[in-house]
Amino acid sequence: MKYKVSFIGSGNVAWHLSHALDAAGHTIEQVISKTEENAAELAKKFGSYFSDDISKIDTSVDACICCVSDDQLKTVVHSIPKSRMIILHTCGSQSMDILEPASPNFGVFYPLQSFSKGKAIDMLNVPFLLEASNNQTNDVVHALADSISNNIRQANSTQRLQYHLSAVFANNFVNRLYHEADRYLQENDLDFSVLIPIIQETAAKIKTLSPKDAQTGPAKRGDIQTIEKHLKLLADHKDLQQLYVNFTNAIQDEN
Amino acid sequence: MKYKVSFIGSGNVAWHLSHALDAAGHTIEQVISKTEENAAELAKKFGSYFSDDISKIDTSVDACICCVSDDQLKTVVHSIPKSRMIILHTCGSQSMDILEPASPNFGVFYPLQSFSKGKAIDMLNVPFLLEASNNQTNDVVHALADSISNNIRQANSTQRLQYHLSAVFANNFVNRLYHEADRYLQENDLDFSVLIPIIQETAAKIKTLSPKDAQTGPAKRGDIQTIEKHLKLLADHKDLQQLYVNFTNAIQDEN
Repeated sequence: MKYKVSFIGSGNVAWHLSHALDAAGHTIEQVISKTEENAAELAKKFGSYFSDDISKIDTSVDACICCVSDDQLKTVVHSIPKSRMIILHTCGSQSMDILEPASPNFGVFYPLQSFSKGKAIDMLNVPFLLEASNNQTNDVVHALADSISNNIRQANSTQRLQYHLSAVFANNFVNRLYHEADRYLQENDLDFSVLIPIIQETAAKIKTLSPKDAQTGPAKRGDIQTIEKHLKLLADHKDLQQLYVNFTNAIQDEN
Repeated sequence: MKYKVSFIGSGNVAWHLSHALDAAGHTIEQVISKTEENAAELAKKFGSYFSDDISKIDTSVDACICCVSDDQLKTVVHSIPKSRMIILHTCGSQSMDILEPASPNFGVFYPLQSFSKGKAIDMLNVPFLLEASNNQTNDVVHALADSISNNIRQANSTQRLQYHLSAVFANNFVNRLYHEADRYLQENDLDFSVLIPIIQETAAKIKTLSPKDAQTGPAKRGDIQTIEKHLKLLADHKDLQQLYVNFTNAIQDEN
């Protein structure tokens, strides 16, 4: 079944989801965004109506997908004219019920992926965590997700928040470690690109090994001499030295 | 130029390097390993001599590559009969000079990658950090590395240790974060496989963006509400809560 869908928001999530739903044969009816220029840019790909005025939203569509950031969602919901249109949000850390003021038919359409504008993503592999306020809404949410991804699952708001939290460790904090490595290498006139192959391999390994079984390194081996050499190198980088000690202790405590 | 090469050690590094050098047309003359069974298994692929007795090493080869772990290297070097054969090690954290007792011709042939037995690796992309005690040895080390990788560079022992340290952050500690996420999800009966696509994407992004520019998440956005929700979820996981606070503070201090 093909649906008429509108978007609130025109950032990375709206950009990727609207293109995927359009490619799957659904109709993108409207793009509403506080930045009219961005709404126009996205809408023109689909010949859709666009506006920066949320009161112009057409509540006769099958579903309206609200792609705004977690911290903006509440404010946006209260500005949507009340109707019976299915309204969905795409946030990891907001409960489903936050949508209740806008419609009795509401749900969550959360892609657990980090989207960048202009960088293609294989949407078929993106995990979608779905939730709905009633059966009819649930059917639409599942049909929409199923039309663009092979990786969909039901998750309540608590489970979704737990996944979101775990992704902060596995994505945001991991990237921070890349940044610490980059900063340290730059300070020593060395080249971060040397680490790119091992970073890819580390990420690839956990497709087939559990992270526990994939753990390697001086801390895992109990190689005290290497650990001491590393700590000595970090004598002038107290923050990195503390980070090194914390991770090393945590890995050794588990051995 | 094709060389005659022997290996000391029969672990993952020896396994991958010997196969790559064999495929590049060099001859694997001997495999010496303290575990004769492993030496035999590796040697039979090349029809090479094998032994668990290091005194049997044939010092007439062009180069002997010592693929033992950083913490075992010193002991192994002292057991090698003294000769003029080129002797190389493959360790990130050991200085080149550790090889001096065995030969006046020595160097380092360090692949900055995490090898797993039985898992293919694209050796052409593996960064090799090279060092040698004299010009003649340097020519052989470069020729060997150049025959199997497109990513070779000179690095002195300090620079190599600095790269090794940065890889501990970007590989070992990153994997530990994957493990923390896995552990947390398991405790909540959730499925780590949901994170695999975002983990791959996080690693892929830094091929084209600097880690600083690739940083996203609640800490980067200053999304206090989401941070507070996450910390509340971690109330019964004090170790993870502390880790979360440390990373969040570090990211926010940089904003």
